[in-house]
Amino acid sequence: MNLKALPGTRDILPSEMGLWRRIEEKGREMFQRWGYREIRTPIFEDTRLFRRGLGETTDIVEKEMYTLEMGKGPSLTLRPEATAPVVRAYLQHNLHKTRPFQKFFYMGPLFRHERPQAHRWRQHSQLGVEAIGSKEAWLDAETIRLAQQFFADLEITGINLRINSLGDEQCRPAMRDQLRKELGGRLDELCKKCRERYDRNVFRILDCKEEGCRSIVDGLTDLTTLLCDDCRRHFDALRGALTAMQIPFEHDARIVRGLDYYCRTVWEIDDPELGGSQNALGGGGRYDPLIVQLGGPDVGGVGFALGADRAIDAILARGGAEDSSEPVLDLFVVVVEASVRDEAYLLVDRLRLQGIRTDVDYEGKSVKAQMRQAHRIGVRWVAVIGPGEISRGVIRLKDMESGREEEIGEQGIPGRLAASTGAKPA
Amino acid sequence: MNLKALPGTRDILPSEMGLWRRIEEKGREMFQRWGYREIRTPIFEDTRLFRRGLGETTDIVEKEMYTLEMGKGPSLTLRPEATAPVVRAYLQHNLHKTRPFQKFFYMGPLFRHERPQAHRWRQHSQLGVEAIGSKEAWLDAETIRLAQQFFADLEITGINLRINSLGDEQCRPAMRDQLRKELGGRLDELCKKCRERYDRNVFRILDCKEEGCRSIVDGLTDLTTLLCDDCRRHFDALRGALTAMQIPFEHDARIVRGLDYYCRTVWEIDDPELGGSQNALGGGGRYDPLIVQLGGPDVGGVGFALGADRAIDAILARGGAEDSSEPVLDLFVVVVEASVRDEAYLLVDRLRLQGIRTDVDYEGKSVKAQMRQAHRIGVRWVAVIGPGEISRGVIRLKDMESGREEEIGEQGIPGRLAASTGAKPA
Repeated sequence: MNLKALPGTRDILPSEMGLWRRIEEKGREMFQRWGYREIRTPIFEDTRLFRRGLGETTDIVEKEMYTLEMGKGPSLTLRPEATAPVVRAYLQHNLHKTRPFQKFFYMGPLFRHERPQAHRWRQHSQLGVEAIGSKEAWLDAETIRLAQQFFADLEITGINLRINSLGDEQCRPAMRDQLRKELGGRLDELCKKCRERYDRNVFRILDCKEEGCRSIVDGLTDLTTLLCDDCRRHFDALRGALTAMQIPFEHDARIVRGLDYYCRTVWEIDDPELGGSQNALGGGGRYDPLIVQLGGPDVGGVGFALGADRAIDAILARGGAEDSSEPVLDLFVVVVEASVRDEAYLLVDRLRLQGIRTDVDYEGKSVKAQMRQAHRIGVRWVAVIGPGEISRGVIRLKDMESGREEEIGEQGIPGRLAASTGAKPA
Repeated sequence: MNLKALPGTRDILPSEMGLWRRIEEKGREMFQRWGYREIRTPIFEDTRLFRRGLGETTDIVEKEMYTLEMGKGPSLTLRPEATAPVVRAYLQHNLHKTRPFQKFFYMGPLFRHERPQAHRWRQHSQLGVEAIGSKEAWLDAETIRLAQQFFADLEITGINLRINSLGDEQCRPAMRDQLRKELGGRLDELCKKCRERYDRNVFRILDCKEEGCRSIVDGLTDLTTLLCDDCRRHFDALRGALTAMQIPFEHDARIVRGLDYYCRTVWEIDDPELGGSQNALGGGGRYDPLIVQLGGPDVGGVGFALGADRAIDAILARGGAEDSSEPVLDLFVVVVEASVRDEAYLLVDRLRLQGIRTDVDYEGKSVKAQMRQAHRIGVRWVAVIGPGEISRGVIRLKDMESGREEEIGEQGIPGRLAASTGAKPA
């Protein structure tokens, strides 16, 4: 039996890498343009970080974590999300003491042990930002602008931004009471999961995908009418900022995000082109309570996470061609016969050291097969080397576009290529 | 209690990222110049992949794997090395059927549950290449050149390349018999671990670090005198190629690499500057048997893995300054008073959309504190915006290098910055 990648995981092959690199480079460039700096946290953390940070009764913590008990040592969990780790790092390294306000970005794999389905992977990849140290509503707006513009630059258009406010510790209890009051008499109309949620995490009923629950939720009081004055001002400021930046959005009371650490702003961007229920491209929000929960000061924090796998699906759904990542070689060296093989390999080595992207056959192929390979790669220049060329101290250089051939000294190659293909000698 | 990153794992903070990015970008550029293409495999694999590929009696498989039992599903293991996963991917996607010869590179985290110590992390990061589909000795030499040049380009000098040949299934049995014959009478002089190794994996005695074992190993027969004709020709060709490329190397019979899948070429590069026993910067070798072991054809494969953490330690050991990765902002916007805050944030947003890397205060700091922040960041340009500027429709632009100020319309900013700092408007 041949082994395969485990269910819910996959390889990214060289032929697919172009699109991944496009997304990562775009994210890196934009995040830095917006003033964010890269941070990397470990693939696994102390399980308590997620239990404490995300909330014991969340789906992730209860059912979806990859947790590994290591004998006497602390229990490890493959990170299911990156916000708690970034906040942990911010506190561990006392970054809040030298400069309370810090803007971070990250990209990398995350893990959730769920049923694999379309657009849903057990190992998936996210790009995200975390701005820690301010409660300013413009900061929430800045992160939303960054996410929205990221997708726009990738030509992922026609997507929907939906925002909501969950209030804070002042007004959340009244929102929870109101919700329980209105739903209490209709428990038998809710799905089984929502009947459980009623006691454990009533806000999660709001984003239930079941038809019956959705229609009940549609008729509920808009909970943002219960926001306290500070939360109302913050929500108004956010909406004002988005409007001033001409970012289209919708207020959607269903957006709750499912983690205990959020307060005030929550948002999601979904893509109708992906279809089905797994159509969120990303989301984010404000998590002031998380920083306190992890032992830090009440300085505030806001961020987002965007799904790289989903972004690629969204590009493909729009007919965006996968970029080939075949390295664009500058030159391919064709070896006429075995007697000059050593000279050919040494030539390839010297050219690479001069900055030329070049390769050669390692399978003992015929000249014809080597020329076919050069064609397939799509390389502009082919250097043919045989006993005749060696004895005359030249290389036969063929331009695959024009078909023209010339004999040239080895020293002339970098300049000849640079003049025509833009290859830059090191 | 505040939670910390687990022992043997660590965060890479923004202030450290510059050096990491330098290494990754150098690797990516060079690997592509040498004709390798990026592949990514999952963080965890079916445990059987490593048991079958690396060998049941290797240290990694016996003691160092992070393995997670998932109820009824297959057992998962965080990848302790990347060669078996890359070969698994090559076979799973039938790449060998369309084009047997393929060159891959990868970079990313690997996991070994060892005692944390200097230069040794439980999660560490590697850059590596795998060239699958050829048994040509020049290919082994090419990968060694690539590794050696990678370190040279990073100005990690004074390192040692040591190579060896382990033979193949033809001659390995004779090498093993010879070793057991010579060591059999001296078991009581070996360390406890080596006495175990004698029965289980006698070759591992050759790279034991214990003083007593080392002196015994020094007196043993050079096993490469027992190579079969094919292996001898391969080893001679490799040494000839390295000599022709003027790459200094030493033949060291101690190099065995500790994994069952190697045949013929094995090598390591170590850095005396790192000191102690953990001074290997990387290594590699040929693993023809692995491909067969995983169900593939006997086409041959060779590769290497270089430690990114170690490379950084090597740069730091040579006084290589850590690059700051503070994003070089083009411009910092200073807000004179709260009444113009919204205008300031909108200005920042418009400038970013035009490609200007810019940021602003989100903490309500005084003008003086904002100017201090601009100084600390080391930004060239500061744009001051207050009620006076707003009413006149201008921005006060200050050149922090010359101290000169000018008033300028918003439309003029991208051009003004491009003319002097090289910032390129999008």
